Amino acid sequence: MPATISVADAAARFEAFQRLGLNLDMTRGKPCAEQLDLSGELLSAPGAAGRANDGSDTRNYGGLEGLSEARRLLADLLSVDAAAVVVGDNASLSLMYDTFSEAMHRGVPGGEGPWPRATRVLCPVPGYDRHFGLAAHLGCELVSVEMTTEGPDLDQVRALVADDPAVKAIFCVPRYSNPTGVTYSDEIVEGLANMPTAATDFRIVWDNAYAVHHLYDDEVPLADILAACRAAGVADRVLAFGSTSKVTLPGSGICALAASPANREWFLANRAMRTIGPDKINQLRHAQLLPDAGAVRAHMRRHAEIIRPKFEAVDAILDAELGGLGIATWSRPRGGYFIDLDTRDGCARDVVALAGRCGVKLTPAGATFPYGQDPRDRNIRVAPTFPPMDELRQAAEILALAIVLIAAERDLLESL
Amino acid sequence: MPATISVADAAARFEAFQRLGLNLDMTRGKPCAEQLDLSGELLSAPGAAGRANDGSDTRNYGGLEGLSEARRLLADLLSVDAAAVVVGDNASLSLMYDTFSEAMHRGVPGGEGPWPRATRVLCPVPGYDRHFGLAAHLGCELVSVEMTTEGPDLDQVRALVADDPAVKAIFCVPRYSNPTGVTYSDEIVEGLANMPTAATDFRIVWDNAYAVHHLYDDEVPLADILAACRAAGVADRVLAFGSTSKVTLPGSGICALAASPANREWFLANRAMRTIGPDKINQLRHAQLLPDAGAVRAHMRRHAEIIRPKFEAVDAILDAELGGLGIATWSRPRGGYFIDLDTRDGCARDVVALAGRCGVKLTPAGATFPYGQDPRDRNIRVAPTFPPMDELRQAAEILALAIVLIAAERDLLESL
Repeated sequence: MPATISVADAAARFEAFQRLGLNLDMTRGKPCAEQLDLSGELLSAPGAAGRANDGSDTRNYGGLEGLSEARRLLADLLSVDAAAVVVGDNASLSLMYDTFSEAMHRGVPGGEGPWPRATRVLCPVPGYDRHFGLAAHLGCELVSVEMTTEGPDLDQVRALVADDPAVKAIFCVPRYSNPTGVTYSDEIVEGLANMPTAATDFRIVWDNAYAVHHLYDDEVPLADILAACRAAGVADRVLAFGSTSKVTLPGSGICALAASPANREWFLANRAMRTIGPDKINQLRHAQLLPDAGAVRAHMRRHAEIIRPKFEAVDAILDAELGGLGIATWSRPRGGYFIDLDTRDGCARDVVALAGRCGVKLTPAGATFPYGQDPRDRNIRVAPTFPPMDELRQAAEILALAIVLIAAERDLLESL
Repeated sequence: MPATISVADAAARFEAFQRLGLNLDMTRGKPCAEQLDLSGELLSAPGAAGRANDGSDTRNYGGLEGLSEARRLLADLLSVDAAAVVVGDNASLSLMYDTFSEAMHRGVPGGEGPWPRATRVLCPVPGYDRHFGLAAHLGCELVSVEMTTEGPDLDQVRALVADDPAVKAIFCVPRYSNPTGVTYSDEIVEGLANMPTAATDFRIVWDNAYAVHHLYDDEVPLADILAACRAAGVADRVLAFGSTSKVTLPGSGICALAASPANREWFLANRAMRTIGPDKINQLRHAQLLPDAGAVRAHMRRHAEIIRPKFEAVDAILDAELGGLGIATWSRPRGGYFIDLDTRDGCARDVVALAGRCGVKLTPAGATFPYGQDPRDRNIRVAPTFPPMDELRQAAEILALAIVLIAAERDLLESL
């Protein structure tokens, strides 16, 4: 039985917030200052030493694959063998961009030349706007696929890849997905590895951006896609990516590709055209801060202690304001950086605009869909990590009030 | 009147070197360890502070254009306005690569869509192998243009660009050119800015890699190509690049694009697709180490004090061994990283191979030409900065002996 609410009261509270002239930003999954402080050592590292484990001078040119100690760190992060890892600079997005760019220029192993202009890319929705943006920028056609609570809808994916050789790739954020928080089930991982594809050069872009970003001690497991693809005889099908962006410092971290020998060779041959080597000193800094898997785990627990209360505060406020009204649903993620909220159909854009009039900046409605178009206009990505707790509480309350007020406009409420 | 030499004596000395089992590397323009020590402060910077001049937290995401203090530093380096500068990460080569890549994907301002597969790129020769490599990788056709002592042969360039709209770009290293050491004269700079081009979207790739890399106090002047192109009404024609790779630390420096407003807007729109921002902490480090133009100048003088004796030692040895024999000529550069050596036609490949049998690694003969093919097989790029002085002297002597012995094989010598 639905709860009831006083719309007049909500409007009055909303107006009171408006008079405060707030400026609250929940647009992006940015760590807050306290999180960045956890990596303060990086600001004076590596100190005097500039030598890598292999004795090389990290200050000079070279070392395209990355230092062995940095490869090991990223391998720990991604739960893969260090031998599978190539280390890059501060943005795994760049590695993904370059992957698509090179595929469009020259093709990938197993293919017959450049990907065509009419390349189609599968986009589980809601998903990460920057994935969609880079593929569209390079001329690919974006094809939406529904997300389920287990990962992308495998029946849809199978049907799309089975007959059309122009379907060349799928974007996946397999753990604590952006924005749904879903971690792919073993069945989905196996299904992606084993499905027949018309394209001989199909690629799973496995953006494991939240690989170790647990909010709770019950870490949600994720199957090993590289192993699954190897076992399925399609080792080259997957390119896995990750970074320390939300482990250490977002602008100054290190990132990695993990892939099959053929894919690594291809990647490095391309990379050699655009750089003589990565920033190895920054790799050394990271290896010093996080010398082993235990250090990573401890470090990520400290992150969780800072941001878990923020996720829980937003959830509590949404629950108090919206629980039982039937006008919104939202996720309670076990990791990652987002709360995924659905209004009733046709309300998201107006809710975001209304919250904006109170000084609350949210990710634009639609951003989580290809071309910025949410066909049901209901999805809102909430990023609770960056604002201080008091601002976050205000922002969450304003968001809830905006949902109520838009729902009232639409006569979606049983109101007092 | 030609000098004479004892080939038997040269052969005996060469064999003596062979017995030493040397391993001497003159392949690449790499700074030596003493040069890297000049930037030792970077290894513990920025210390506790993570704030930029504008108050922003450099540790977090964002700031695609770069910190204002880093833009000012690169502007000083490139002798341009800070407003024209966008700061990148550790490799200006990557900025050039991305420029060509985006041009081939989507085109550049002033053009009518993507550059065609048959894009032709002018390559002054001898030149920088990585320039040629990246353009060829992306499918461009490389077209050689002769270098003169003033810069590329302007008559050749003018003829090539005047009628063929597929000629889209020219690579230039305008100061202390790699490998010739030539600095472009004012007439060449003006000529490049003012020449009519069939392509409306022609680009001068102005790789000012050695902008402040003087070996002597009489700094060779270079005209301002951005101003010249503006004055000629073709402000978008030039994209200038530079970096701190041979100012601070080669693998861990910062780089820049300097360009017109339309080119910057284009570049940043593309950049936003592949990254959320550069490594701003590394920009802050650099701004701390080199706070103003005077600091840059003092820093580069210290570099010159370390490497000038190396250039002069190689020159002295080549002069002592080869002077007056008529079998080799070489440059005496006033800056940059290379001595450019020409043997008699048809000898370079064999000289490099022979020196290699004594453990001296040289840049492969031909590398300074498109597709690695020197049509006269005479050009050898000598990189004297990296080896310690005693090894450098040995390597130079071995190189000279190899030139003598190959010349003797070819009956090019008046020998005793």
